[in-house]
Amino acid sequence: MQQFDAVDPDFESRVRAGFQRQQFMSTLGAHMTKVTAGEVHIEIRFNPAWTQQHEFVHGGVITSIVDSACGFAAFTLMPAGSEVLTVEYKINFLAPARGDRFVGIGLVVKPGRTLTVCSGEVLAYQNGDERLIATMQTTMMMIAR
Amino acid sequence: MQQFDAVDPDFESRVRAGFQRQQFMSTLGAHMTKVTAGEVHIEIRFNPAWTQQHEFVHGGVITSIVDSACGFAAFTLMPAGSEVLTVEYKINFLAPARGDRFVGIGLVVKPGRTLTVCSGEVLAYQNGDERLIATMQTTMMMIAR
Amino acid sequence: MQQFDAVDPDFESRVRAGFQRQQFMSTLGAHMTKVTAGEVHIEIRFNPAWTQQHEFVHGGVITSIVDSACGFAAFTLMPAGSEVLTVEYKINFLAPARGDRFVGIGLVVKPGRTLTVCSGEVLAYQNGDERLIATMQTTMMMIAR
Amino acid sequence: MQQFDAVDPDFESRVRAGFQRQQFMSTLGAHMTKVTAGEVHIEIRFNPAWTQQHEFVHGGVITSIVDSACGFAAFTLMPAGSEVLTVEYKINFLAPARGDRFVGIGLVVKPGRTLTVCSGEVLAYQNGDERLIATMQTTMMMIAR
Repeated sequence: MQQFDAVDPDFESRVRAGFQRQQFMSTLGAHMTKVTAGEVHIEIRFNPAWTQQHEFVHGGVITSIVDSACGFAAFTLMPAGSEVLTVEYKINFLAPARGDRFVGIGLVVKPGRTLTVCSGEVLAYQNGDERLIATMQTTMMMIAR
Repeated sequence: MQQFDAVDPDFESRVRAGFQRQQFMSTLGAHMTKVTAGEVHIEIRFNPAWTQQHEFVHGGVITSIVDSACGFAAFTLMPAGSEVLTVEYKINFLAPARGDRFVGIGLVVKPGRTLTVCSGEVLAYQNGDERLIATMQTTMMMIAR
Repeated sequence: MQQFDAVDPDFESRVRAGFQRQQFMSTLGAHMTKVTAGEVHIEIRFNPAWTQQHEFVHGGVITSIVDSACGFAAFTLMPAGSEVLTVEYKINFLAPARGDRFVGIGLVVKPGRTLTVCSGEVLAYQNGDERLIATMQTTMMMIAR
Repeated sequence: MQQFDAVDPDFESRVRAGFQRQQFMSTLGAHMTKVTAGEVHIEIRFNPAWTQQHEFVHGGVITSIVDSACGFAAFTLMPAGSEVLTVEYKINFLAPARGDRFVGIGLVVKPGRTLTVCSGEVLAYQNGDERLIATMQTTMMMIAR
């Protein structure tokens, strides 16, 4: 794991404020459980409202939490007054999204002036067992306001 | 656009039944507005509950409808008694998800015995204007029950 | 297919000059067989030197021609004096790269000030038959010199 | 890093034999410098014949070594008598491919009966400095002969 220095000392409050403004995250009941320079975790609990036809959580919901985690991980390293947007991502689903609780982890791989590349993982927890269920590679973009 | 022949003459009712069982699609208020051999459309209306920090629809929601559209497009060409799952996808966001209504379009590019490759698009409609806001490339897998 | 207007009337000579400077393309014996605003074709002939263990052309060579085709397709729409670089791509291999001749086709999907999204295809030709063997989705970036 | 057990005790000789049959790897002067269960390294030296217009190594060549490294990493965990093929990959280019020597590293993330997901990295070496220049996420498929 790489170590990064945030240029904005107040990055955590800036990132948490951005997360609060994502209504979809609050609709999902998501919590931001970790915010450090270059790493963000976002967590949801199982809810039948988010499921697909096999009663696992829909891949789009799993994608949503790790997309937000990666976006905010990139955002931790951006200057105050900037905005972040998702250019693109690719996700592989490794196992069914079965569990009580799901954690999307976003990690910066390479920060850049305009583009930041992140990798993401989603872990599922069931009865105390942890399982890697998805892995993401994504490109985020800084927008100067 | 390629033409495909479905091996299952009842593919439409099978696909629509699968869609009905995706609780997340009903949570989103999604409708399946087209089902033909190799092509499926899924539509949602704007709802502030699905938005991100800039008040556009969250990328994960946009991804969800086109993921489902691609999965069901692949499923139209699979035999009765099979199941479909998403192996992976990659999506590029081309414009902000601003609009009254969003249509995810899934198209089969190459059906296969085990794997089917699809391409997806998401169109946003606002005051009658249509705009391409996302494009997806994805691999779906057939599971024989 | 979308129509695009090139801002640089001399885009074709600029693009062809860039292609001439890609030594790897000349190592592969590649030809640029089409250059229009938003679309570029690059063609190679079969050569056992480019094969993998099953005697088909290596996926990395197939990727190389369609990566260059997409990059130059994006470059047709960029202003004189700019440079293009590949941010990222995703490619699906649909069929073995078996044939006498392979054509990588790059098409602009969405041009942008900084980022341009393209889609690519690779066609294989054998005894007059044409087959789609790969499909790409990619993000290109303009660098102002 | 995960630890994997290879089902085939002779995986190394099987993997090295597969690599020997990839004529494109020998055209590139590539060497397989590491083969363990779930991890393979493939190395090339700089050669102007592989360059693009800015005199860096072409992205397609960088992709080729890490594609092969990932494919053979997946292959280390497959049974004797099987074959491996690349379903798809996504690669981000993080820095120009400038250097004397380039190492493609393939790592298994999740092995499966049919599909294996790998992650790849490419390191560039110049005057003793090491730099991460590309990161890949890929799906490989086992073919039973």
